Amino acid sequence: MTKHRFSATEREGVYRAIAERRDMRHFLPDPVAPEIMSRLLEAAHMAPSVGYMQPWRFIRISDAKLRVAMVALVEEERRETAAALDERGEEFMRLKVEGIRECPELWVVVLTDRRERYVFGRRTMPSMDMASASCAIQNLWLAARAEGIGMGWVSLFDPAKLKAMLKAPADSDPIAILCLGHVEEFYRQPMLEQKGWDKRKELTTVIWENYWSANEIS
Amino acid sequence: MTKHRFSATEREGVYRAIAERRDMRHFLPDPVAPEIMSRLLEAAHMAPSVGYMQPWRFIRISDAKLRVAMVALVEEERRETAAALDERGEEFMRLKVEGIRECPELWVVVLTDRRERYVFGRRTMPSMDMASASCAIQNLWLAARAEGIGMGWVSLFDPAKLKAMLKAPADSDPIAILCLGHVEEFYRQPMLEQKGWDKRKELTTVIWENYWSANEIS
Repeated sequence: MTKHRFSATEREGVYRAIAERRDMRHFLPDPVAPEIMSRLLEAAHMAPSVGYMQPWRFIRISDAKLRVAMVALVEEERRETAAALDERGEEFMRLKVEGIRECPELWVVVLTDRRERYVFGRRTMPSMDMASASCAIQNLWLAARAEGIGMGWVSLFDPAKLKAMLKAPADSDPIAILCLGHVEEFYRQPMLEQKGWDKRKELTTVIWENYWSANEIS
Repeated sequence: MTKHRFSATEREGVYRAIAERRDMRHFLPDPVAPEIMSRLLEAAHMAPSVGYMQPWRFIRISDAKLRVAMVALVEEERRETAAALDERGEEFMRLKVEGIRECPELWVVVLTDRRERYVFGRRTMPSMDMASASCAIQNLWLAARAEGIGMGWVSLFDPAKLKAMLKAPADSDPIAILCLGHVEEFYRQPMLEQKGWDKRKELTTVIWENYWSANEIS
């Protein structure tokens, strides 16, 4: 117990957002109120970033032609992935992996250009920019859950092609297509668990002491 | 408004955790109750992961010799970073960048080995493993804030050397040294802002529409 601890209900809100957040692929057509979108983006922008670099840029896709092109881009990668997955390819093709066509809010998160200027915390760990932007996306995701808004993070795309589509510089890197919207229901479990793709590991198998352990049931 | 929206106080908890989370480098010596640490790790493990790969492994450092070795490892990288920072090197050396020596809970997060088995969402975006583990760390960070526990994410280390120290496999990747503990006060602003290292960008400069924009004030 400390004086810095939140109230029981506030804590419950945090743990509930964490537990009930889902990677959504089903959306209702109702628009998301602009003031909610603003709060979500503010939440994202409050994320930690290595050396305070704030590498994230958020691009809202309102152009219908761009959206159609993104649907095709993801479909292309979905087929490539199925082929690469080999014996699980067919099972993968039966999964709904995104809601790009139907989500009322479609966003792309891009790591900004000229990131080599930021050395603090990245000299040996350049991918800390990806880490920081992922924390921003997780903030957005949790805030969205609290607002009753569903979100999905799609990473099934060729980043070079998406970059070209958005006329983004060669040294920028799109890392996420985010689909947001109201939902009929949040999945009770992660969808990949509901569909039998995989299950959650026991917590004890991912926590070790002092040294790497080989006790993982994989 | 939707039926899925949290209560006002629960929402406030989520937004407050996001707004008041800080990258802490000052800790009190009081131990963190094991049941709190368990809740934080459970929160981390509820993070989204690409293709449900759950790439995160958490190693608790209880061995004092390992801790001393990690202090030296980070100090080495701190000096290398200062040298690489050139004209801002001296200013950087005056910053307190970690609390490894004093934090009561010291953890390393490692991306597990044999991750090439996971193709779903990673064929063109292999660093989605880093993204997923970063979401887990952000969950832990926000839950810690709600519990009144401070956390710092240190990335100033040579990952190959840390891997060797922890006897981790060649194809695993340590991504974070996490320092946790009670704190006297949470910084009112990010410490790097308080110390004048950099400031938060205006939100409007990181949000664009349809295409890359060059309106950023850098």
